[in-house]
Amino acid sequence: MEFSFISHLHCPKCQKEYRADEIQQLCTCGSPLLVDYDLQELKKHWTPASLVGRSNDLWRYHELLPIVDPGNIVTLGEGLTPLLRMDRIGSTMGIDHLWMKDEGIIPTGSFKARGAAVGVSKAKELAVQELAMPTNGNAGAAWALYAARAGIKASIVMPVEAPVITRNECAISGANLNLVNGLISDAGKIVGQAVKEYDYLFDASTLKEPYRIEGKKTMGLEIVEQLNWKVPDVILYPTGGGVGLIGIYKALKELVELGWIEDKLPRLVAVQAEGCAPIVKAWEEGKPDSQFWEDSTTIAFGINVPKALGDFLVLEAIYKTDGCAIAIDDAALLKEQEQIARLEGVFVCPEGAATFSAARKLRESGWIKAGETVIALNTGSGIKYPETVQVEVPVLEPGERMTRG
Amino acid sequence: MEFSFISHLHCPKCQKEYRADEIQQLCTCGSPLLVDYDLQELKKHWTPASLVGRSNDLWRYHELLPIVDPGNIVTLGEGLTPLLRMDRIGSTMGIDHLWMKDEGIIPTGSFKARGAAVGVSKAKELAVQELAMPTNGNAGAAWALYAARAGIKASIVMPVEAPVITRNECAISGANLNLVNGLISDAGKIVGQAVKEYDYLFDASTLKEPYRIEGKKTMGLEIVEQLNWKVPDVILYPTGGGVGLIGIYKALKELVELGWIEDKLPRLVAVQAEGCAPIVKAWEEGKPDSQFWEDSTTIAFGINVPKALGDFLVLEAIYKTDGCAIAIDDAALLKEQEQIARLEGVFVCPEGAATFSAARKLRESGWIKAGETVIALNTGSGIKYPETVQVEVPVLEPGERMTRG
Repeated sequence: MEFSFISHLHCPKCQKEYRADEIQQLCTCGSPLLVDYDLQELKKHWTPASLVGRSNDLWRYHELLPIVDPGNIVTLGEGLTPLLRMDRIGSTMGIDHLWMKDEGIIPTGSFKARGAAVGVSKAKELAVQELAMPTNGNAGAAWALYAARAGIKASIVMPVEAPVITRNECAISGANLNLVNGLISDAGKIVGQAVKEYDYLFDASTLKEPYRIEGKKTMGLEIVEQLNWKVPDVILYPTGGGVGLIGIYKALKELVELGWIEDKLPRLVAVQAEGCAPIVKAWEEGKPDSQFWEDSTTIAFGINVPKALGDFLVLEAIYKTDGCAIAIDDAALLKEQEQIARLEGVFVCPEGAATFSAARKLRESGWIKAGETVIALNTGSGIKYPETVQVEVPVLEPGERMTRG
Repeated sequence: MEFSFISHLHCPKCQKEYRADEIQQLCTCGSPLLVDYDLQELKKHWTPASLVGRSNDLWRYHELLPIVDPGNIVTLGEGLTPLLRMDRIGSTMGIDHLWMKDEGIIPTGSFKARGAAVGVSKAKELAVQELAMPTNGNAGAAWALYAARAGIKASIVMPVEAPVITRNECAISGANLNLVNGLISDAGKIVGQAVKEYDYLFDASTLKEPYRIEGKKTMGLEIVEQLNWKVPDVILYPTGGGVGLIGIYKALKELVELGWIEDKLPRLVAVQAEGCAPIVKAWEEGKPDSQFWEDSTTIAFGINVPKALGDFLVLEAIYKTDGCAIAIDDAALLKEQEQIARLEGVFVCPEGAATFSAARKLRESGWIKAGETVIALNTGSGIKYPETVQVEVPVLEPGERMTRG
């Protein structure tokens, strides 16, 4: 049996098809490309029972991933992250079955590792020698480190305000790192210019390469496998570029086509920050795509994306699943972050905290019902964002007495 | 079948036995206590095949863990961390089969999560309401967060020089945090005084509670399971308090008694820093225990432990397995940390980097042979130690050109 059932790529806008055994970037029409598999053939050979005893990482789903030769896999053991019950914080919201998919427990400390593992592996398979990308920090760190493992050169451009620790990750990996006094959109223009000048440079920008979606979609596969092939009612996802949401939606549709789950998908929720909510605005206006959000700002830096290339795919996923989009203010998500740590013992990232705030608001409004199964996606570890915590603490001299808290 | 096969506790110094269903701290003789299981009974029911399809965390070994009622388990999904091939860095050392057990991919970002998960779960089972402990940072962060999830109050005392991020983890968990202008030994005295004053306060100091060893020993179980029940030739472990090494040795002996592995154990190596090497000194002198190391200092803060309560158990594990102890200087481990990131794409902690330096030195000296299977244990994620990386990076204005690295 084939290791991968990848067949080709196609453009979701103009339906043009592309080969999967050559380097591809965007469609000629400017749209991102999506990966197709021979699901009808795969269906004959592959069942949930096939997964028993497989590796506890995302490569357990290799038939539904784009790497043809297992020798090209570049892995740090990413995937099959914990799906944790969050009963104590759930009870403060009136949600009986609240779970968190914890993407902090993954190489490089954020869910970006999934996109990087699959994207870099496929880049290696296609003999890419050098790549470049703009980033809000975590994706750049992940791609820099996976590229180092693959022996591929990487150039990373990130805003000066991106989490400082992600600079260290890029630097220690040996990547060529540049900061920009601006937003990820400014970093994107700088990378675009470089790719134009150096034609051997692979553009690994979000959705300009087609394979990170495949890595991200494994979050959807895992959530359903971890719930024993039952789909939850709601999945809340912190949305910047939106690749994870696009990926989860794609995964669920593929599982339906394989006959592994029924045709009732969870309602997908795009959670944004009030200071950067282009998807929310588009959804509220019933539009198929978003507009550039001027002067965007939020402490949840990973979702400070004023205009996403895949906005139309995010909105499609929301519309088709009867989902919604919702914006959270920074004060609310910081309060939620502290509550989660105090009640559940997890130091989540600000983006992850926003999904809990969103669940709370949607329960209050009645959009989420008490008995529904709700998944909040924490996209990374809080230890990458030390500045979100205020620490005031007594300093003792040896022999002094401990304070009583 | 019973969930746990725990039978009792015993003192490895004076052999006195203790009940496992009551709170215990040290033996009356001052020694740490070890946990015993009814291995002869367990052997009748439990085989490697029993593990197939179990949860991908350390609770897959619940028969060999001390929690009697599964309802008392406090988990964040810890364990079954990646065992990664490290071929590229291995080839620079002349070691053909070098692997890394990556304990950065775990809740709270360090292997301390294992001890905390099992220790806090057992504390909950024994109805502990409040605990206190000294720490070099990571253990305190882990215990504070797991205690929060369990609803147990925690007081943590750490040196001012401990990694700053671990303060944030303690603070956001709601723990009572104190810093001390001194070493972990000074923090220990402060906790000891508090425990004496408040008799309801459980002393969760390293080895003063008997259950964290059981959590740490799962590293040994996992390494052997991940190698398909074959033991490696060498395991290198960065040694401060040494609980992980004691735990791995205990796990291996239990597996021998269960008949799951043969009676030839891997050679266990205690890796210390040149600025704090009491175990190395004792081993070089052939002594059964160590002496307090004056004015200890190293950038690998987690192994800055001038005198470990379990030193005699660490030394026994080394002597019995024909292992050794070796000290690494800070400059060497920082260089190794960078090499690992550049060649393997992993940002390891300084303590983890020290085990690679040790492997390199031991290969050079011939103590490790080229064809041996060698496991380096990385105890935590480098992202908790940003100050170990120098970052000098150009800052562009929007529209400027990317540098070519």
